[in-house]
Amino acid sequence: MWGGRFKAGPAAIMEEINASIDFDQKLYRQDIEGSLSHVAMLAQTKIISQSDYEKITHGLKKIRQEIEMGTFIFSRKLEDIHMNIEARLSELIGPVAGRLHIARSRNDQVAVDFRLWIREEMEKMVQILKGLIEQLLIRAEQHVDTFMPGFTHLQTAQPVTFGHYMMAYVEMFSRDLSRMRDAIERMNESPLGAAALAGTGFPIDRFMTAEALGFREPTRNSIDSVSDRDFALEFLSVGTLCAMHLSRLAEEIVLWSSAQFHFIRLSDAFSTGSSIMPQKRNPDAAELIRAKTGRLNGALIGLLTVMKGLPLAYSKDMQEDKEYVFDGALSLELSLAAMRGIIGDLEVNKETMKQAANFGYATATDLADWLVRELGLPFREAHHITGCIVALAEKKQCTLNELQLIELQMIHPDINATIFDVLTVEKSVESRKSFGGTAPSEVLRQIAYWKKRLITA
Amino acid sequence: MWGGRFKAGPAAIMEEINASIDFDQKLYRQDIEGSLSHVAMLAQTKIISQSDYEKITHGLKKIRQEIEMGTFIFSRKLEDIHMNIEARLSELIGPVAGRLHIARSRNDQVAVDFRLWIREEMEKMVQILKGLIEQLLIRAEQHVDTFMPGFTHLQTAQPVTFGHYMMAYVEMFSRDLSRMRDAIERMNESPLGAAALAGTGFPIDRFMTAEALGFREPTRNSIDSVSDRDFALEFLSVGTLCAMHLSRLAEEIVLWSSAQFHFIRLSDAFSTGSSIMPQKRNPDAAELIRAKTGRLNGALIGLLTVMKGLPLAYSKDMQEDKEYVFDGALSLELSLAAMRGIIGDLEVNKETMKQAANFGYATATDLADWLVRELGLPFREAHHITGCIVALAEKKQCTLNELQLIELQMIHPDINATIFDVLTVEKSVESRKSFGGTAPSEVLRQIAYWKKRLITA
Amino acid sequence: MWGGRFKAGPAAIMEEINASIDFDQKLYRQDIEGSLSHVAMLAQTKIISQSDYEKITHGLKKIRQEIEMGTFIFSRKLEDIHMNIEARLSELIGPVAGRLHIARSRNDQVAVDFRLWIREEMEKMVQILKGLIEQLLIRAEQHVDTFMPGFTHLQTAQPVTFGHYMMAYVEMFSRDLSRMRDAIERMNESPLGAAALAGTGFPIDRFMTAEALGFREPTRNSIDSVSDRDFALEFLSVGTLCAMHLSRLAEEIVLWSSAQFHFIRLSDAFSTGSSIMPQKRNPDAAELIRAKTGRLNGALIGLLTVMKGLPLAYSKDMQEDKEYVFDGALSLELSLAAMRGIIGDLEVNKETMKQAANFGYATATDLADWLVRELGLPFREAHHITGCIVALAEKKQCTLNELQLIELQMIHPDINATIFDVLTVEKSVESRKSFGGTAPSEVLRQIAYWKKRLITA
Amino acid sequence: MWGGRFKAGPAAIMEEINASIDFDQKLYRQDIEGSLSHVAMLAQTKIISQSDYEKITHGLKKIRQEIEMGTFIFSRKLEDIHMNIEARLSELIGPVAGRLHIARSRNDQVAVDFRLWIREEMEKMVQILKGLIEQLLIRAEQHVDTFMPGFTHLQTAQPVTFGHYMMAYVEMFSRDLSRMRDAIERMNESPLGAAALAGTGFPIDRFMTAEALGFREPTRNSIDSVSDRDFALEFLSVGTLCAMHLSRLAEEIVLWSSAQFHFIRLSDAFSTGSSIMPQKRNPDAAELIRAKTGRLNGALIGLLTVMKGLPLAYSKDMQEDKEYVFDGALSLELSLAAMRGIIGDLEVNKETMKQAANFGYATATDLADWLVRELGLPFREAHHITGCIVALAEKKQCTLNELQLIELQMIHPDINATIFDVLTVEKSVESRKSFGGTAPSEVLRQIAYWKKRLITA
Repeated sequence: MWGGRFKAGPAAIMEEINASIDFDQKLYRQDIEGSLSHVAMLAQTKIISQSDYEKITHGLKKIRQEIEMGTFIFSRKLEDIHMNIEARLSELIGPVAGRLHIARSRNDQVAVDFRLWIREEMEKMVQILKGLIEQLLIRAEQHVDTFMPGFTHLQTAQPVTFGHYMMAYVEMFSRDLSRMRDAIERMNESPLGAAALAGTGFPIDRFMTAEALGFREPTRNSIDSVSDRDFALEFLSVGTLCAMHLSRLAEEIVLWSSAQFHFIRLSDAFSTGSSIMPQKRNPDAAELIRAKTGRLNGALIGLLTVMKGLPLAYSKDMQEDKEYVFDGALSLELSLAAMRGIIGDLEVNKETMKQAANFGYATATDLADWLVRELGLPFREAHHITGCIVALAEKKQCTLNELQLIELQMIHPDINATIFDVLTVEKSVESRKSFGGTAPSEVLRQIAYWKKRLITA
Repeated sequence: MWGGRFKAGPAAIMEEINASIDFDQKLYRQDIEGSLSHVAMLAQTKIISQSDYEKITHGLKKIRQEIEMGTFIFSRKLEDIHMNIEARLSELIGPVAGRLHIARSRNDQVAVDFRLWIREEMEKMVQILKGLIEQLLIRAEQHVDTFMPGFTHLQTAQPVTFGHYMMAYVEMFSRDLSRMRDAIERMNESPLGAAALAGTGFPIDRFMTAEALGFREPTRNSIDSVSDRDFALEFLSVGTLCAMHLSRLAEEIVLWSSAQFHFIRLSDAFSTGSSIMPQKRNPDAAELIRAKTGRLNGALIGLLTVMKGLPLAYSKDMQEDKEYVFDGALSLELSLAAMRGIIGDLEVNKETMKQAANFGYATATDLADWLVRELGLPFREAHHITGCIVALAEKKQCTLNELQLIELQMIHPDINATIFDVLTVEKSVESRKSFGGTAPSEVLRQIAYWKKRLITA
Repeated sequence: MWGGRFKAGPAAIMEEINASIDFDQKLYRQDIEGSLSHVAMLAQTKIISQSDYEKITHGLKKIRQEIEMGTFIFSRKLEDIHMNIEARLSELIGPVAGRLHIARSRNDQVAVDFRLWIREEMEKMVQILKGLIEQLLIRAEQHVDTFMPGFTHLQTAQPVTFGHYMMAYVEMFSRDLSRMRDAIERMNESPLGAAALAGTGFPIDRFMTAEALGFREPTRNSIDSVSDRDFALEFLSVGTLCAMHLSRLAEEIVLWSSAQFHFIRLSDAFSTGSSIMPQKRNPDAAELIRAKTGRLNGALIGLLTVMKGLPLAYSKDMQEDKEYVFDGALSLELSLAAMRGIIGDLEVNKETMKQAANFGYATATDLADWLVRELGLPFREAHHITGCIVALAEKKQCTLNELQLIELQMIHPDINATIFDVLTVEKSVESRKSFGGTAPSEVLRQIAYWKKRLITA
Repeated sequence: MWGGRFKAGPAAIMEEINASIDFDQKLYRQDIEGSLSHVAMLAQTKIISQSDYEKITHGLKKIRQEIEMGTFIFSRKLEDIHMNIEARLSELIGPVAGRLHIARSRNDQVAVDFRLWIREEMEKMVQILKGLIEQLLIRAEQHVDTFMPGFTHLQTAQPVTFGHYMMAYVEMFSRDLSRMRDAIERMNESPLGAAALAGTGFPIDRFMTAEALGFREPTRNSIDSVSDRDFALEFLSVGTLCAMHLSRLAEEIVLWSSAQFHFIRLSDAFSTGSSIMPQKRNPDAAELIRAKTGRLNGALIGLLTVMKGLPLAYSKDMQEDKEYVFDGALSLELSLAAMRGIIGDLEVNKETMKQAANFGYATATDLADWLVRELGLPFREAHHITGCIVALAEKKQCTLNELQLIELQMIHPDINATIFDVLTVEKSVESRKSFGGTAPSEVLRQIAYWKKRLITA
């Protein structure tokens, strides 16, 4: 493969460490697509003849067919997808196959293949994210007045609604979607024609291949074009944040489906059970989603490690870029799809949630706010009085709204019956009408916002 | 601080693990800015009186002055910057200080402080990046025809120019700049008014505070507003890629300033020497820049670890977000500034570079391309002939362009004198006129492009 | 500092990126200790005179005193702790100070300082880990028959005891302790005398300094001695595993102290409360411990990134090693100390735990095992029968041991009264007497084992 | 698989995220080995009959044969290796297959399988590391007096030998080996018999299975036994350090084989060439080894992320442990094997190395040391004089030992002819006889030490 100057063939160990065909065959479609554009441009610019163009094109399409039919034989001796296809092209059409490599090298070839793969993957991810967001919007709308405790430090803090909660995740995944789109836009430049690293003396037209491959424009520096793996790293960066969001939601699903929380019930499809313990529904899918975060973190750190301190231009180290991306993409896709299923299927135990929201005098803040707002008390005093009222309820083992007005007035004479308007979970939630707050009217407004934005976006 | 219900004060160990004032005092300016906007809005919406507004505003401004004069005494007992300022405000203006906390909690307060800090930092980083890019453009323009070897696998591959090389880094840092801008845009939303997590019943105007603090709009979900640290993670993600780029350039500077390469000479300002070995110029600054990559990778992984699987809304874990960002920002700023200095100061050993570009028959590709282009030879044959010519030069211990035409014609009779047009480093470079290629005319075109884009951008 | 050959002093930016005195002053004690040993050896081997030895020793001790009294003035211009001390020594005793640097360089000096610091830290960590393990043993012994649910997938699986649970963490922290000891043993070699990288021509005695500094022996290769940072990385590796264990226990403490679990009540000392919500005890310390995992992961990845691909011997990159270790060590110490406090203080809600252990037919496995063991039923049949019995209990809304014998016999006629021996939580726990099982007798055996091993270890 | 209680089968997406058979089939041998030991113990302790034991044993051995012959059909529907084997066993021997699962669960089963796999892998790694160390010792011995420059900051510092350099890596890989052995020792405990998490009521003998599987003893806590993945993490931790060492050596090989260094020539087997540029030998294998560091860093961080904050006991997240370890192990094995090949094959360009060692007055330190040692000059003065002498040589464009004695005496009259004993590379190297120094006699001593230690170890 590298001519007669090498006395010995590469050792078996070398073949094993060096060959990438086991994983980069995934790029066959992009590789052929890139070659077809390149050869069309070579013909258009008269660098090769029309007849050579036709032969090469025909050969490439045949190879694509062979691969898709499963009749193509991949060889580790031929190292990678590029050489496998090249060798087969020579078999099919003879020496003219060599003309495909005019004004191109493996360095810009792999750069264009990998960009095409990642761009396609990110476009798919945008759709998958939209699907998950839509699912969350549906559940949010259904549960815009399903009360549940809002937690801080996993301690009951203030009542919110399950719809409001779902919308928090809509915000997160929408940021992920937005980052994915920025990444697509930024990387949408064609490195084809950078050749080995310096460009070429052939009168190629890089704008033509860029356009044919759907790129906005060609890259502007040939050395950078073959050295750059930002597009892979940015994809993984965006992926780690998304995986982190998924891990938070997955953790909550695991918690909520525990016997202790009992907030939700997972569907059969996304849990596993026990043949002898009927109540057991192991949240396997959620746990696996939570764990997949490790894949993304690992892939990102792995590729950052590879690229650290690498001199320009292409170094063989960069061959290691692909498996991180392939594994990261698969993990993320699977996690997003499984999460959509979980969210779509889960049953909400409204009663348990509401009881929990009532627990622990979660409306104490509302009470204190009422004292400040209605009686104009100083903060410190309002807090002191609230503490006394809560202590009374605790002693009587009742909820705040089960106290008598007279009892409250003994604590502060100016308290009047309107205070009860804020002491129930329902009233507390309803009152929080500030922009982005948990009041159903506010949550509905945000649902409407996102529905519209997702369509136009 | 948390009332009389706790019999014992927090143990010493608790104070040590819990207090954040040692690092979050860095946020004092943002904290006061946020409070000033909040209190102005409270007055405007009549939630507090004009007189209270004036007292609080006066107190806050006085505290800012005290901190900036160095007379403010920070206390670990008061945990964090918010409580330190709050306590001092009470001292200064009495119970009315409490009215500042109407419709706000520490959760949205810290979220707004930290966003303001990071936004400011990213805006500064945009400027620093522009400075570095400008410096690279200057050097690129000076060296648009300074020849040097282009490497693949750190082996001489094809001649390029130092100007072209510098422009590869312009592309990288411009992508970093573009990512930074996207990150600013995405995070430029105000969480103020989300309160503890559920919003508030007070008739606040979140658009007003958002505008006052320079945010595009308020965030749309109060739970997300206090749980979200994407803005910190995205900043660190962007930072890791930038640090990786810096590590590549730093590595090259270390290599180039070694005795073996001898491509450049660092200035006194950015190297250290030996009192007895005059030739020694240790590239300390470049080495430290290379090493700082570890800070960014570590900070990103650290914060991703913190956020993994964290249920909503605020958990104390999130207090750990700040030091990662502070350290990452400082490391990146320092590295970018030092790199700008190194690039601005370094002397290029043009002769050594050019000799190295000539080494190893780096124009052999040009020769093969000439045979394909001019004689229409098939690839395989062109390669074979090139191999023979190189072997001849090797035997005669001369460069390719020192061979005689007659010698070349003995290898292939159709070769003519125009072949010499591609055999020198100069000619090779000049010929690579494809878009983004190393030809001076092409590099100048890209320099012009970036100069314009930087101004308008 | 590096003689007169440099026209310009280092720029301000260079000073900022280059100076390490802000953090490496932490090594002052080790630096002076190393110098005292070195100079004693130089005198003993007659390389310097007795009088020089006395002057230097006196000067160094005085400097140590100055630093400890707080009167020493550290200077960033002098870069690091070594140069700060060296410069002060010259001031105090004049040119003879220079003789301290015979047969030594900053490279082996910093290597020995940093090893001493880390060794000391790891020895301290061994004691802290022992303290935590002792605390866990105390709680385990107190709760050897406190029943609680054992979880898989956070679903109730089988009853265990709180004592047994605590002992699981004893195993984890004991492995951490064992790793820490291995690390100490492995790194306990003295690099002093490796000089810049090649050793020295002076007739030094490296065994003597090694012994004086408490090292087992000197290192065997001078190049490795100044290039190696394994001791720092191994410390951080051991630390990440320990931090991971802490994060698991911290997570459980957060869960257990939620309203939903209500398994434990944290002490005032290790939680924070709310002035108006009395039931709220935010598990801040546990949350911070959980978050500190990020510090260790980040520090390890940071330093691994620094060291990746670094040619031998010393490179300035390695100056970045210290802050990772200092921060990692502090985070781990604090976390371990806080965890000891939390564990020592927490109150166990025995009743809630036991009720939870009873939930969900957690003894169904025991029932199936009884059918296999006592009736010799095939597995599949035993599982089928268990399923039927559980379904019956579910229908009757009772626990398994509340069913009547006659009801059971209607499902399988061979069932007899001894089946009730396994249906209660108590009996289930008591029955699991396999080595390492949850039966109190077994747990007591393991407590005894660890008590003995900790003393002798 | 989980009985009739689930209305719907797991969705396709669930199967894809949940099934581990694609990777955990690698554990088939360990799984069967563990089962064989377990069933032998069940028979020995009379928990099952001799006849059942024989049937099960026969069935398991047949399955092993089927897998090794390639006739076993793995099914994703059956999720993992355990269920695949279990289902096949049922087919082969009927319901008696169920008795294999007495006193065992998938939780302890997978723990024992994975431990066996990792222990075996680490034992293999110990041998591979020994092989690499032996190779380094061979090259060290051959080049005990091959001079080369020792670098600091990649600047020529002092002359050393190639043998000494190789021995630095012997130290590093020996520490890796030592860590690997400690890890084996620490994890060599059998979790079998921990059952689901609480142990079992069957009278099993865990010491018997532990012994049969080559474990030192059974684990002491059943909850920890199924929750612990320290053994996987410690393996990866040890692996990251080893990979880091490999990356340093790989970087040096890339540097040394560049045209600029030209210190070594790689063999055909471990490099790739160019059909037209004969001098080009791309160090692909070394580059890939350098890049593989990313795999180990990524795998470690990935698994640490998975385990962070995971409550006890088994959670499905832990299924993600295997691919990290499998990939990490393969990457490390390949890298070590390739490095052994590279080191064994490389040719040393002695002349180039020696010339480089001479460059830049690398013996200036020796000169200064001579002035201190022989003339008793103060440090500062010795440095000043050395600076003058070097400046003279620079002016005369000669090496230090080409200066005339009289010229030296004009700089300092007490200088005598013995100074030339330290000015050549040879003399400088020979003089550094301190323990661990670069003098050939010292290096030979260390080679002897390691040869002996490797045999006895």
